[in-house]
Amino acid sequence: MDLTNLHSLSASDAVHLIRQGAIDSAQLVEACLARVRETDTQVQAWAFLDPDHALAQARAADDLKRQGLPIGPLHGVPVGVKDIFDTADMPTEYGSVLYAGRTPSRDAAAVAMLRAAGAVIIGKTVTTEFATQAPGKTRNPHDPDHTPGGSSSGSAAAVAAGMVPLAIGSQTNGSVIRPAAFCGVLGFKPTHGLIPRHGMLTLSRTLDQVGVFARTVHDLALLAGQLVGYDERDPDTRPRARIPFAEVAAEEPPLPPMFAFVKTPHWERADEETKEAFGELIEHLGDRVEEVELFPSAAEAWQWHETIMEAEMAANLEREWKEGRDRLSDSLRAQLERGREVRAVDYQRAVARIRPIHESFVELFEQRYDAILTPAAPGTAPKDLASTGDPSFCTLWTLCGMPAVSLPLLQGTNGLPLGVQLVGPRDGDARLLRTARWLAAAVAAG
Amino acid sequence: MDLTNLHSLSASDAVHLIRQGAIDSAQLVEACLARVRETDTQVQAWAFLDPDHALAQARAADDLKRQGLPIGPLHGVPVGVKDIFDTADMPTEYGSVLYAGRTPSRDAAAVAMLRAAGAVIIGKTVTTEFATQAPGKTRNPHDPDHTPGGSSSGSAAAVAAGMVPLAIGSQTNGSVIRPAAFCGVLGFKPTHGLIPRHGMLTLSRTLDQVGVFARTVHDLALLAGQLVGYDERDPDTRPRARIPFAEVAAEEPPLPPMFAFVKTPHWERADEETKEAFGELIEHLGDRVEEVELFPSAAEAWQWHETIMEAEMAANLEREWKEGRDRLSDSLRAQLERGREVRAVDYQRAVARIRPIHESFVELFEQRYDAILTPAAPGTAPKDLASTGDPSFCTLWTLCGMPAVSLPLLQGTNGLPLGVQLVGPRDGDARLLRTARWLAAAVAAG
Repeated sequence: MDLTNLHSLSASDAVHLIRQGAIDSAQLVEACLARVRETDTQVQAWAFLDPDHALAQARAADDLKRQGLPIGPLHGVPVGVKDIFDTADMPTEYGSVLYAGRTPSRDAAAVAMLRAAGAVIIGKTVTTEFATQAPGKTRNPHDPDHTPGGSSSGSAAAVAAGMVPLAIGSQTNGSVIRPAAFCGVLGFKPTHGLIPRHGMLTLSRTLDQVGVFARTVHDLALLAGQLVGYDERDPDTRPRARIPFAEVAAEEPPLPPMFAFVKTPHWERADEETKEAFGELIEHLGDRVEEVELFPSAAEAWQWHETIMEAEMAANLEREWKEGRDRLSDSLRAQLERGREVRAVDYQRAVARIRPIHESFVELFEQRYDAILTPAAPGTAPKDLASTGDPSFCTLWTLCGMPAVSLPLLQGTNGLPLGVQLVGPRDGDARLLRTARWLAAAVAAG
Repeated sequence: MDLTNLHSLSASDAVHLIRQGAIDSAQLVEACLARVRETDTQVQAWAFLDPDHALAQARAADDLKRQGLPIGPLHGVPVGVKDIFDTADMPTEYGSVLYAGRTPSRDAAAVAMLRAAGAVIIGKTVTTEFATQAPGKTRNPHDPDHTPGGSSSGSAAAVAAGMVPLAIGSQTNGSVIRPAAFCGVLGFKPTHGLIPRHGMLTLSRTLDQVGVFARTVHDLALLAGQLVGYDERDPDTRPRARIPFAEVAAEEPPLPPMFAFVKTPHWERADEETKEAFGELIEHLGDRVEEVELFPSAAEAWQWHETIMEAEMAANLEREWKEGRDRLSDSLRAQLERGREVRAVDYQRAVARIRPIHESFVELFEQRYDAILTPAAPGTAPKDLASTGDPSFCTLWTLCGMPAVSLPLLQGTNGLPLGVQLVGPRDGDARLLRTARWLAAAVAAG
């Protein structure tokens, strides 16, 4: 076995090799750390990474296995964690100088679940300021002059650069799907409420959703499967039976899936090359895809999303605004100031729209389609480090809490990855991954 | 059997006699209708009551029984329904001229559950305007110059006057507990989310709660037990195991209960005779009661309640305000106008306070006390038909969604009933009724 290339293993393969005893976690983590040394000077994906602490976790995992103790589904596999999830053993700084040196005493629910599954929490990945707009230091691994996307910039970039096979992030607008697309990895944002958010920075209870990054659909399923759960500290989670993510994602669909190609009311924002690439993809899929127009009121959803997001951010970041607004970015300060002016009636009206708009999509899925097919972003990663790009193609699905996955199936003329987004109905997460795997295979087959 | 006095039977006794075949539902409903004819000219508890339709339901119930078909726990028993619950067979007018003649096509969830239990929906009881402040026509059965309380005025008055053994109402501030106390009947408002609200007028998702009226604790338990359930159309309900209301309420407590006497920050609003009557009650209970001071921030809860209620009312009654504000009462128009000005940040801050304040009560119950003991209202029903009285002694418990019961154990010097309120922790509903039965017996034993 070539130990120098272990960093490029998928998590599923790594777990398999560790279980077999062909490699151990320390070797895997060593390889990932070597890759960090090799690439991170340029990429800068990490807000915090202590190689010794990572290796200590790996060696502890190896000890457990040597003692014959039961091991978890992610045993010994390194995972990057966006720096808005609390970690008891590392700082959690929210991408803001206001929280420099903050060291929580407990793990976030998602982090605790990763540890219970045996994962090595290798480090904290760079987030934009409070997971909003102002970029962190991370650059796109494909070209350092381009944004990696945000707000889960470091998680996407670290997986793309081969520094880690898995990472977790969050999405309140387009913060998982967009960086995944810009960095050319797979991103998956499950149904709202599936993954508990306790111990994660709260911007918006209505919109905040945990997401995952990986380099294969199978790995997305493996990781997401460890994170689903009921947590009474997150009032949007529910007790539910285990979702067989990996099993369903690995199945062949009983029939070839049908896709609803949705341009969204923001199609004019898409680059010409995005429009062309999607035209070719749709041609390639033939009768498996039909263009579907959204009902006219869907166009208002972007405004509802903004009203909810800004009003809830203004409430959740009220202390930061009151006590540290001079140390916030201009863009965040402006968002909070707009949010503070939202009236409760307008806010409630926007929240009340979510259910009916989601209902209209339920019909779409029940009648005919397995997934909505739409761009993940208007184009490839912009050559601009002052912004993290445009989330418009994610907003509607995030508002509705629908599961979405970004697949790096296309390419721009600049050679940068161009993401294809698939969206399913709420609670159709595992089937969405199955459909995604089918699509990736269909594109690969040419 | 003296058929002329059937109207004074408890629901539990009536069910028993109907099951035995000693009486039938038509006889019971006839007796209740006779009582209506006798008393309602003065009390005016009904917004709608069609004697023929009530009797037709009773006869249908009797037919079912004669055919040997299975019968429900409320088989043949007449129940009054506050005129904010939709009924497929009767108008539902919300106490507003804006909805005069409104005839819904479906039953509210609670009404459907009553029918499934075999109840006869005898008629619709008077509500204040949109279950808010402006009084309806109902008068206090004990003295027609006094208010019956509100907003569930007709439900409380109809049960008090012996027109019906059971009725349902709703509480957003004090609309079950206060009229029960003023009319001298038992009122029970279970934990928020226990009884589905689909098909009931929505003022405030956060605060609206269904409640029940009866003349015995056993009847409260019987009725509430039929109404608990999960309904996906009410997002605050949850799937849960059946709660054995009647069984637990009938048990003897394993130890004599301990009461926390809570004056609340509004004690100065209580009449002198209320203060004296509670002083005597507490003396009578001896070492079973201790005075407990609320933490200082509890005083802010009344403001949080007002912010939430007015902001949510402004959203839920927006159409009425926009299209019919000239036909709203001055008090409601003023409330909606204040609600429209509430900022989303203030609204959210108020909502976010509910959980921590409830947590502080949980500790109280876990440590030492079975129930909080507090007045249901500042005094007996005021001699004033232009208002329905002061809900202050209910606000805090409604805000927290805690179960509360009002017991007619005391009396004012004017001879009018004075209510004792018991409050339990969320989901402690059945045990609260058990404690209430113990207290009623302890007071009756002198």
